[in-house]
Amino acid sequence: MKLHGYYRSSTSYRLRIALNLKRIDYEYVPVNLLAGEQAGDAYKARNPFASVPLLEADGRDRAQSMAQLEWLDEAYPQRPLLPADTERRFTVRELAYAIATETHAPNNLQVLKYLKANFGASQEQVDTWYRHWLSRTFAPVEARLEQLGTGDFLFDGPGLFEVVLLPQIYNARRFALDLSAMPRIERIEAACLALEPFQRAHPDNQPDNPKKGQDT
Amino acid sequence: MKLHGYYRSSTSYRLRIALNLKRIDYEYVPVNLLAGEQAGDAYKARNPFASVPLLEADGRDRAQSMAQLEWLDEAYPQRPLLPADTERRFTVRELAYAIATETHAPNNLQVLKYLKANFGASQEQVDTWYRHWLSRTFAPVEARLEQLGTGDFLFDGPGLFEVVLLPQIYNARRFALDLSAMPRIERIEAACLALEPFQRAHPDNQPDNPKKGQDT
Repeated sequence: MKLHGYYRSSTSYRLRIALNLKRIDYEYVPVNLLAGEQAGDAYKARNPFASVPLLEADGRDRAQSMAQLEWLDEAYPQRPLLPADTERRFTVRELAYAIATETHAPNNLQVLKYLKANFGASQEQVDTWYRHWLSRTFAPVEARLEQLGTGDFLFDGPGLFEVVLLPQIYNARRFALDLSAMPRIERIEAACLALEPFQRAHPDNQPDNPKKGQDT
Repeated sequence: MKLHGYYRSSTSYRLRIALNLKRIDYEYVPVNLLAGEQAGDAYKARNPFASVPLLEADGRDRAQSMAQLEWLDEAYPQRPLLPADTERRFTVRELAYAIATETHAPNNLQVLKYLKANFGASQEQVDTWYRHWLSRTFAPVEARLEQLGTGDFLFDGPGLFEVVLLPQIYNARRFALDLSAMPRIERIEAACLALEPFQRAHPDNQPDNPKKGQDT
Protein backbone atom coordinates (compact mmCIF):
# COMPACT_ATOMS: atom_id res chain seq x y z
CA MET A 1 0.00 0.00 0.00
CA LYS A 2 1.25 3.48 -0.82
CA LEU A 3 0.07 6.67 0.81
CA HIS A 4 0.74 9.81 -1.22
CA GLY A 5 0.55 12.65 1.26
CA TYR A 6 1.97 15.81 2.76
CA TYR A 7 3.28 15.98 6.30
CA ARG A 8 1.11 18.87 7.43
CA SER A 9 -2.06 17.95 5.50
CA SER A 10 -4.62 16.99 8.10
CA THR A 11 -6.30 14.49 5.78
CA SER A 12 -2.94 12.77 5.14
CA TYR A 13 -2.37 12.71 8.90
CA ARG A 14 -5.77 10.98 9.31
CA LEU A 15 -4.70 8.17 7.01
CA ARG A 16 -1.32 7.73 8.69
CA ILE A 17 -3.03 7.32 12.08
CA ALA A 18 -5.61 4.89 10.71
CA LEU A 19 -3.05 2.72 8.92
CA ASN A 20 -0.90 2.63 12.05
CA LEU A 21 -3.85 1.76 14.30
CA LYS A 22 -4.69 -1.12 11.98
CA ARG A 23 -1.00 -2.10 11.77
CA ILE A 24 -1.04 -1.95 7.99
CA ASP A 25 2.41 -1.39 6.49
CA TYR A 26 2.56 1.33 3.88
CA GLU A 27 5.06 3.28 1.86
CA TYR A 28 4.82 7.04 2.30
CA VAL A 29 5.21 9.07 -0.91
CA PRO A 30 5.53 12.81 -0.22
CA VAL A 31 3.58 15.21 -2.45
CA ASN A 32 4.76 18.79 -2.07
CA LEU A 33 1.57 20.85 -1.92
CA LEU A 34 3.41 24.14 -1.67
CA ALA A 35 5.23 23.37 -4.92
CA GLY A 36 1.90 22.42 -6.57
CA GLU A 37 2.87 18.80 -7.29
CA GLN A 38 -0.76 17.73 -6.78
CA ALA A 39 -1.87 19.84 -9.76
CA GLY A 40 0.44 18.20 -12.30
CA ASP A 41 -1.07 16.21 -15.18
CA ALA A 42 0.46 12.89 -14.12
CA TYR A 43 -0.95 13.22 -10.62
CA LYS A 44 -4.38 14.42 -11.79
CA ALA A 45 -4.71 11.47 -14.17
CA ARG A 46 -4.58 9.30 -11.04
CA ASN A 47 -6.53 11.64 -8.79
CA PRO A 48 -8.73 14.15 -10.64
CA PHE A 49 -9.43 15.92 -7.34
CA ALA A 50 -5.75 17.01 -7.29
CA SER A 51 -5.74 16.37 -3.56
CA VAL A 52 -3.86 14.45 -0.93
CA PRO A 53 -4.00 11.86 0.39
CA LEU A 54 -4.08 9.42 -2.49
CA LEU A 55 -4.18 5.84 -1.30
CA GLU A 56 -2.75 3.32 -3.75
CA ALA A 57 -4.21 0.09 -2.48
CA ASP A 58 -5.50 -3.20 -3.84
CA GLY A 59 -4.88 -2.20 -7.45
CA ARG A 60 -6.63 1.13 -7.35
CA ASP A 61 -5.94 4.82 -6.81
CA ARG A 62 -8.32 6.06 -4.13
CA ALA A 63 -9.00 9.71 -3.32
CA GLN A 64 -10.99 11.40 -0.54
CA SER A 65 -9.91 10.64 3.00
CA MET A 66 -13.31 9.86 4.53
CA ALA A 67 -14.06 7.37 1.74
CA GLN A 68 -10.58 5.88 2.18
CA LEU A 69 -11.15 5.45 5.92
CA GLU A 70 -14.56 3.83 5.48
CA TRP A 71 -13.11 1.55 2.80
CA LEU A 72 -10.11 0.58 4.94
CA ASP A 73 -12.43 -0.44 7.74
CA GLU A 74 -14.47 -2.63 5.40
CA ALA A 75 -11.60 -4.16 3.44
CA TYR A 76 -9.29 -4.57 6.47
CA PRO A 77 -11.66 -5.22 9.36
CA GLN A 78 -8.95 -5.98 11.93
CA ARG A 79 -8.73 -3.44 14.76
CA PRO A 80 -11.84 -1.63 13.56
CA LEU A 81 -12.13 2.15 13.40
CA LEU A 82 -15.89 1.93 13.84
CA PRO A 83 -17.70 -0.02 16.60
CA ALA A 84 -19.96 -2.91 15.62
CA ASP A 85 -23.11 -1.45 17.20
CA THR A 86 -25.24 0.71 14.87
CA GLU A 87 -25.96 3.36 17.49
CA ARG A 88 -22.32 3.70 18.45
CA ARG A 89 -21.36 3.89 14.79
CA PHE A 90 -23.72 6.83 14.47
CA THR A 91 -22.17 8.53 17.52
CA VAL A 92 -18.70 8.19 16.04
CA ARG A 93 -19.72 9.37 12.58
CA GLU A 94 -21.72 12.36 13.78
CA LEU A 95 -18.62 13.78 15.45
CA ALA A 96 -16.12 12.65 12.82
CA TYR A 97 -18.15 14.07 9.93
CA ALA A 98 -18.82 17.30 11.80
CA ILE A 99 -15.07 17.87 11.90
CA ALA A 100 -14.51 16.59 8.35
CA THR A 101 -17.14 18.80 6.76
CA GLU A 102 -17.42 21.87 8.95
CA THR A 103 -13.92 22.50 10.24
CA HIS A 104 -11.58 21.00 7.79
CA ALA A 105 -13.16 22.17 4.56
CA PRO A 106 -13.22 25.96 5.03
CA ASN A 107 -9.64 25.74 6.32
CA ASN A 108 -8.33 23.86 3.32
CA LEU A 109 -5.21 25.37 1.78
CA GLN A 110 -7.10 26.15 -1.44
CA VAL A 111 -9.68 28.16 0.46
CA LEU A 112 -7.04 30.13 2.36
CA LYS A 113 -5.26 30.93 -0.92
CA TYR A 114 -8.55 32.18 -2.39
CA LEU A 115 -9.07 34.52 0.55
CA LYS A 116 -5.65 36.05 0.05
CA ALA A 117 -5.87 36.28 -3.73
CA ASN A 118 -9.46 37.48 -4.11
CA PHE A 119 -10.23 39.33 -0.90
CA GLY A 120 -6.73 40.58 -0.14
CA ALA A 121 -6.87 38.87 3.25
CA SER A 122 -3.86 39.49 5.47
CA GLN A 123 -2.18 36.61 7.29
CA GLU A 124 -3.80 37.88 10.50
CA GLN A 125 -7.26 37.76 8.88
CA VAL A 126 -6.55 34.26 7.58
CA ASP A 127 -5.47 33.13 11.05
CA THR A 128 -8.66 34.59 12.54
CA TRP A 129 -10.75 32.82 9.89
CA TYR A 130 -8.94 29.58 10.65
CA ARG A 131 -9.50 29.77 14.40
CA HIS A 132 -13.13 30.77 13.81
CA TRP A 133 -14.05 27.55 11.99
CA LEU A 134 -12.03 25.41 14.35
CA SER A 135 -13.68 26.76 17.48
CA ARG A 136 -17.11 26.86 15.85
CA THR A 137 -16.96 23.06 15.52
CA PHE A 138 -14.85 22.20 18.55
CA ALA A 139 -17.36 23.88 20.90
CA PRO A 140 -20.33 21.67 19.89
CA VAL A 141 -18.06 18.60 19.74
CA GLU A 142 -17.07 19.34 23.34
CA ALA A 143 -20.79 19.74 24.18
CA ARG A 144 -21.59 16.32 22.70
CA LEU A 145 -18.64 14.72 24.54
CA GLU A 146 -19.97 16.24 27.76
CA GLN A 147 -23.44 14.77 27.03
CA LEU A 148 -21.81 11.39 26.43
CA GLY A 149 -19.59 11.56 29.52
CA THR A 150 -16.40 10.56 27.71
CA GLY A 151 -13.05 9.68 29.25
CA ASP A 152 -9.76 9.03 27.43
CA PHE A 153 -11.58 8.14 24.21
CA LEU A 154 -15.06 8.49 22.71
CA PHE A 155 -15.55 4.76 23.37
CA ASP A 156 -13.16 2.02 24.49
CA GLY A 157 -10.14 2.96 22.39
CA PRO A 158 -9.13 5.24 19.54
CA GLY A 159 -11.21 4.98 16.36
CA LEU A 160 -12.55 7.06 13.49
CA PHE A 161 -13.38 10.01 15.72
CA GLU A 162 -9.89 10.24 17.21
CA VAL A 163 -8.38 9.71 13.73
CA VAL A 164 -10.19 12.82 12.50
CA LEU A 165 -9.91 14.86 15.71
CA LEU A 166 -6.18 14.70 16.39
CA PRO A 167 -5.06 16.36 13.13
CA GLN A 168 -7.43 19.25 13.85
CA ILE A 169 -6.05 19.56 17.37
CA TYR A 170 -2.60 19.79 15.79
CA ASN A 171 -3.94 22.64 13.64
CA ALA A 172 -5.53 24.27 16.67
CA ARG A 173 -2.18 24.25 18.49
CA ARG A 174 -0.41 25.57 15.39
CA PHE A 175 -2.86 28.48 15.10
CA ALA A 176 -2.76 29.16 18.86
CA LEU A 177 -6.41 28.38 19.55
CA ASP A 178 -7.06 28.26 23.28
CA LEU A 179 -8.53 24.86 24.18
CA SER A 180 -8.55 25.26 27.95
CA ALA A 181 -12.37 25.49 28.02
CA MET A 182 -12.55 22.10 26.28
CA PRO A 183 -11.33 19.58 28.87
CA ARG A 184 -12.91 16.56 27.18
CA ILE A 185 -11.12 17.28 23.90
CA GLU A 186 -7.86 17.91 25.74
CA ARG A 187 -8.16 14.65 27.64
CA ILE A 188 -8.62 12.70 24.40
CA GLU A 189 -5.67 14.57 22.90
CA ALA A 190 -3.40 13.54 25.79
CA ALA A 191 -4.53 9.91 25.67
CA CYS A 192 -3.93 9.67 21.90
CA LEU A 193 -0.56 11.42 21.88
CA ALA A 194 0.67 8.86 24.40
CA LEU A 195 0.11 6.07 21.86
CA GLU A 196 2.73 4.93 19.36
CA PRO A 197 0.41 4.88 16.27
CA PHE A 198 -0.40 8.55 16.82
CA GLN A 199 3.22 9.50 17.55
CA ARG A 200 4.51 7.81 14.39
CA ALA A 201 1.80 9.53 12.32
CA HIS A 202 2.60 13.01 13.67
CA PRO A 203 3.69 15.68 11.14
CA ASP A 204 6.93 16.17 13.09
CA ASN A 205 7.95 12.62 12.26
CA GLN A 206 7.39 12.61 8.49
CA PRO A 207 10.28 12.51 6.01
CA ASP A 208 8.94 15.53 4.09
CA ASN A 209 8.87 17.75 7.18
CA PRO A 210 11.78 20.13 6.68
CA LYS A 211 12.22 20.38 10.46
CA LYS A 212 12.38 16.62 10.96
CA GLY A 213 15.12 15.71 13.38
CA GLN A 214 15.51 19.28 14.61
CA ASP A 215 14.07 20.62 17.82
CA THR A 216 10.68 22.04 16.85
CA MET B 1 -39.46 10.04 12.27
CA LYS B 2 -39.16 13.82 12.16
CA LEU B 3 -36.87 15.77 9.87
CA HIS B 4 -36.11 19.30 11.04
CA GLY B 5 -34.94 21.12 7.94
CA TYR B 6 -35.02 24.11 5.66
CA TYR B 7 -36.34 23.92 2.12
CA ARG B 8 -33.23 25.32 0.42
CA SER B 9 -30.61 23.72 2.69
CA SER B 10 -28.81 21.19 0.53
CA THR B 11 -28.15 18.89 3.48
CA SER B 12 -31.89 18.88 4.36
CA TYR B 13 -32.62 18.13 0.70
CA ARG B 14 -30.24 15.12 0.89
CA LEU B 15 -32.22 13.64 3.75
CA ARG B 16 -35.57 14.21 2.06
CA ILE B 17 -34.37 12.33 -1.03
CA ALA B 18 -32.91 9.49 1.03
CA LEU B 19 -36.04 9.04 3.16
CA ASN B 20 -38.20 9.07 0.03
CA LEU B 21 -35.97 6.56 -1.78
CA LYS B 22 -36.25 4.25 1.22
CA ARG B 23 -40.00 4.93 1.46
CA ILE B 24 -39.71 5.96 5.10
CA ASP B 25 -42.54 8.21 6.24
CA TYR B 26 -41.45 11.31 8.08
CA GLU B 27 -42.85 14.52 9.43
CA TYR B 28 -41.15 17.65 8.10
CA VAL B 29 -40.49 20.37 10.69
CA PRO B 30 -39.32 23.62 9.08
CA VAL B 31 -36.46 25.52 10.75
CA ASN B 32 -36.11 29.06 9.45
CA LEU B 33 -32.38 29.54 8.98
CA LEU B 34 -32.75 33.14 7.82
CA ALA B 35 -34.55 33.97 11.06
CA GLY B 36 -31.81 32.20 13.06
CA GLU B 37 -34.10 29.57 14.58
CA GLN B 38 -31.25 27.04 14.54
CA ALA B 39 -29.24 29.17 16.98
CA GLY B 40 -31.88 29.28 19.73
CA ASP B 41 -31.15 27.63 23.07
CA ALA B 42 -33.93 25.04 22.78
CA TYR B 43 -32.69 23.91 19.38
CA LYS B 44 -29.02 23.89 20.41
CA ALA B 45 -29.78 21.74 23.44
CA ARG B 46 -30.94 19.11 20.94
CA ASN B 47 -28.33 19.83 18.29
CA PRO B 48 -25.22 21.61 19.59
CA PHE B 49 -24.05 22.09 15.99
CA ALA B 50 -26.96 24.53 15.48
CA SER B 51 -27.42 23.05 12.03
CA VAL B 52 -30.05 21.47 9.85
CA PRO B 53 -31.03 18.80 9.22
CA LEU B 54 -31.79 17.34 12.61
CA LEU B 55 -33.21 13.83 12.36
CA GLU B 56 -35.41 12.81 15.26
CA ALA B 57 -35.44 9.05 14.89
CA ASP B 58 -35.53 5.96 17.09
CA GLY B 59 -35.50 7.98 20.29
CA ARG B 60 -32.55 10.17 19.47
CA ASP B 61 -31.72 13.58 18.01
CA ARG B 62 -29.20 13.05 15.24
CA ALA B 63 -27.15 15.80 13.59
CA GLN B 64 -24.77 15.79 10.60
CA SER B 65 -26.28 14.70 7.30
CA MET B 66 -23.56 12.26 6.18
CA ALA B 67 -23.73 10.46 9.53
CA GLN B 68 -27.54 10.45 9.30
CA LEU B 69 -27.39 8.90 5.82
CA GLU B 70 -24.89 6.21 6.82
CA TRP B 71 -27.01 5.44 9.90
CA LEU B 72 -30.24 5.28 7.90
CA ASP B 73 -28.69 2.76 5.56
CA GLU B 74 -27.58 0.57 8.46
CA ALA B 75 -30.72 0.86 10.59
CA TYR B 76 -33.16 0.69 7.63
CA PRO B 77 -31.40 -1.55 5.12
CA GLN B 78 -34.32 -1.74 2.69
CA ARG B 79 -33.65 -0.13 -0.70
CA PRO B 80 -30.00 0.51 0.19
CA LEU B 81 -28.21 3.77 -0.57
CA LEU B 82 -24.87 1.95 -0.72
CA PRO B 83 -24.16 -1.17 -2.81
CA ALA B 84 -23.20 -4.39 -1.03
CA ASP B 85 -19.84 -4.76 -2.77
CA THR B 86 -16.89 -3.15 -0.93
CA GLU B 87 -15.31 -1.74 -4.09
CA ARG B 88 -18.55 -0.21 -5.29
CA ARG B 89 -19.14 1.25 -1.84
CA PHE B 90 -15.79 2.96 -2.15
CA THR B 91 -16.67 4.34 -5.58
CA VAL B 92 -19.91 5.81 -4.26
CA ARG B 93 -18.33 7.28 -1.14
CA GLU B 94 -15.34 8.81 -2.92
CA LEU B 95 -17.69 10.92 -5.06
CA ALA B 96 -20.30 11.57 -2.37
CA TYR B 97 -17.73 12.71 0.19
CA ALA B 98 -15.90 14.83 -2.37
CA ILE B 99 -19.10 16.81 -2.79
CA ALA B 100 -19.95 16.79 0.91
CA THR B 101 -16.57 18.06 2.05
CA GLU B 102 -15.19 20.14 -0.81
CA THR B 103 -18.22 21.78 -2.40
CA HIS B 104 -20.82 22.00 0.23
CA ALA B 105 -18.72 23.18 3.14
CA PRO B 106 -17.18 26.40 1.76
CA ASN B 107 -20.60 27.32 0.38
CA ASN B 108 -22.40 26.92 3.65
CA LEU B 109 -24.56 29.90 4.62
CA GLN B 110 -22.35 30.62 7.65
CA VAL B 111 -19.27 30.88 5.45
CA LEU B 112 -20.99 33.22 2.99
CA LYS B 113 -22.12 35.44 5.87
CA TYR B 114 -18.55 35.57 7.17
CA LEU B 115 -17.28 36.71 3.75
CA LYS B 116 -19.77 39.55 3.69
CA ALA B 117 -19.27 40.60 7.31
CA ASN B 118 -15.49 40.30 7.58
CA PHE B 119 -14.20 40.83 4.04
CA GLY B 120 -16.92 43.16 2.82
CA ALA B 121 -17.67 40.77 -0.04
CA SER B 122 -20.29 41.97 -2.50
CA GLN B 123 -23.08 39.66 -3.65
CA GLU B 124 -21.26 39.32 -6.97
CA GLN B 125 -18.07 38.24 -5.19
CA VAL B 126 -20.05 35.77 -3.10
CA ASP B 127 -21.66 34.34 -6.25
CA THR B 128 -18.25 33.97 -7.88
CA TRP B 129 -16.92 32.24 -4.77
CA TYR B 130 -19.93 29.92 -4.81
CA ARG B 131 -19.51 28.93 -8.44
CA HIS B 132 -15.76 28.49 -7.93
CA TRP B 133 -16.14 25.72 -5.31
CA LEU B 134 -18.97 24.09 -7.19
CA SER B 135 -17.08 23.83 -10.47
CA ARG B 136 -13.83 22.95 -8.73
CA THR B 137 -15.48 19.75 -7.47
CA PHE B 138 -17.91 19.10 -10.32
CA ALA B 139 -15.06 18.98 -12.87
CA PRO B 140 -13.19 16.09 -11.20
CA VAL B 141 -16.49 14.35 -10.40
CA GLU B 142 -17.28 14.50 -14.15
CA ALA B 143 -13.77 13.14 -14.85
CA ARG B 144 -14.34 10.19 -12.51
CA LEU B 145 -17.78 9.50 -14.07
CA GLU B 146 -16.10 9.51 -17.49
CA GLN B 147 -13.49 7.01 -16.24
CA LEU B 148 -16.32 4.83 -14.91
CA GLY B 149 -18.44 5.11 -18.07
CA THR B 150 -21.65 5.98 -16.25
CA GLY B 151 -25.16 6.17 -17.70
CA ASP B 152 -28.32 7.36 -15.94
CA PHE B 153 -26.87 6.64 -12.52
CA LEU B 154 -23.47 5.90 -10.97
CA PHE B 155 -24.56 2.26 -10.69
CA ASP B 156 -27.90 0.54 -11.21
CA GLY B 157 -30.17 3.09 -9.58
CA PRO B 158 -30.01 6.20 -7.42
CA GLY B 159 -28.05 5.91 -4.17
CA LEU B 160 -25.85 7.91 -1.82
CA PHE B 161 -24.01 9.64 -4.66
CA GLU B 162 -27.18 10.88 -6.34
CA VAL B 163 -28.60 11.87 -2.94
CA VAL B 164 -25.63 14.19 -2.41
CA LEU B 165 -25.22 15.32 -6.02
CA LEU B 166 -28.74 16.52 -6.85
CA PRO B 167 -28.92 19.22 -4.16
CA GLN B 168 -25.62 20.64 -5.43
CA ILE B 169 -26.95 20.61 -9.00
CA TYR B 170 -29.93 22.59 -7.69
CA ASN B 171 -27.44 25.09 -6.24
CA ALA B 172 -25.48 25.15 -9.50
CA ARG B 173 -28.66 26.04 -11.42
CA ARG B 174 -29.58 28.66 -8.85
CA PHE B 175 -26.16 30.31 -9.15
CA ALA B 176 -26.17 30.02 -12.96
CA LEU B 177 -23.18 27.71 -13.23
CA ASP B 178 -22.82 26.42 -16.80
CA LEU B 179 -22.90 22.60 -16.73
CA SER B 180 -22.91 22.04 -20.51
CA ALA B 181 -19.34 20.68 -20.43
CA MET B 182 -20.44 18.05 -17.89
CA PRO B 183 -22.71 15.68 -19.83
CA ARG B 184 -22.40 12.79 -17.38
CA ILE B 185 -23.56 14.94 -14.49
CA GLU B 186 -26.40 16.38 -16.58
CA ARG B 187 -27.54 12.90 -17.61
CA ILE B 188 -27.73 11.80 -13.97
CA GLU B 189 -29.59 15.01 -13.13
CA ALA B 190 -32.23 14.32 -15.80
CA ALA B 191 -32.66 10.69 -14.74
CA CYS B 192 -33.11 11.63 -11.07
CA LEU B 193 -35.47 14.54 -11.65
CA ALA B 194 -37.78 12.16 -13.51
CA LEU B 195 -38.23 10.11 -10.34
CA GLU B 196 -40.96 10.76 -7.77
CA PRO B 197 -38.70 10.53 -4.66
CA PHE B 198 -36.51 13.32 -6.05
CA GLN B 199 -39.49 15.42 -7.16
CA ARG B 200 -41.18 15.23 -3.78
CA ALA B 201 -37.89 16.17 -2.05
CA HIS B 202 -37.30 19.24 -4.25
CA PRO B 203 -37.08 22.64 -2.52
CA ASP B 204 -39.94 23.90 -4.71
CA ASN B 205 -42.24 21.38 -3.09
CA GLN B 206 -41.56 22.08 0.59
CA PRO B 207 -44.10 23.75 2.87
CA ASP B 208 -41.57 26.35 4.05
CA ASN B 209 -40.77 27.53 0.53
CA PRO B 210 -42.44 30.94 0.27
CA LYS B 211 -42.95 30.40 -3.47
CA LYS B 212 -44.62 27.02 -3.05
CA GLY B 213 -47.58 26.69 -5.37
CA GLN B 214 -46.55 29.71 -7.45
CA ASP B 215 -44.88 29.55 -10.81
CA THR B 216 -41.15 29.73 -10.02
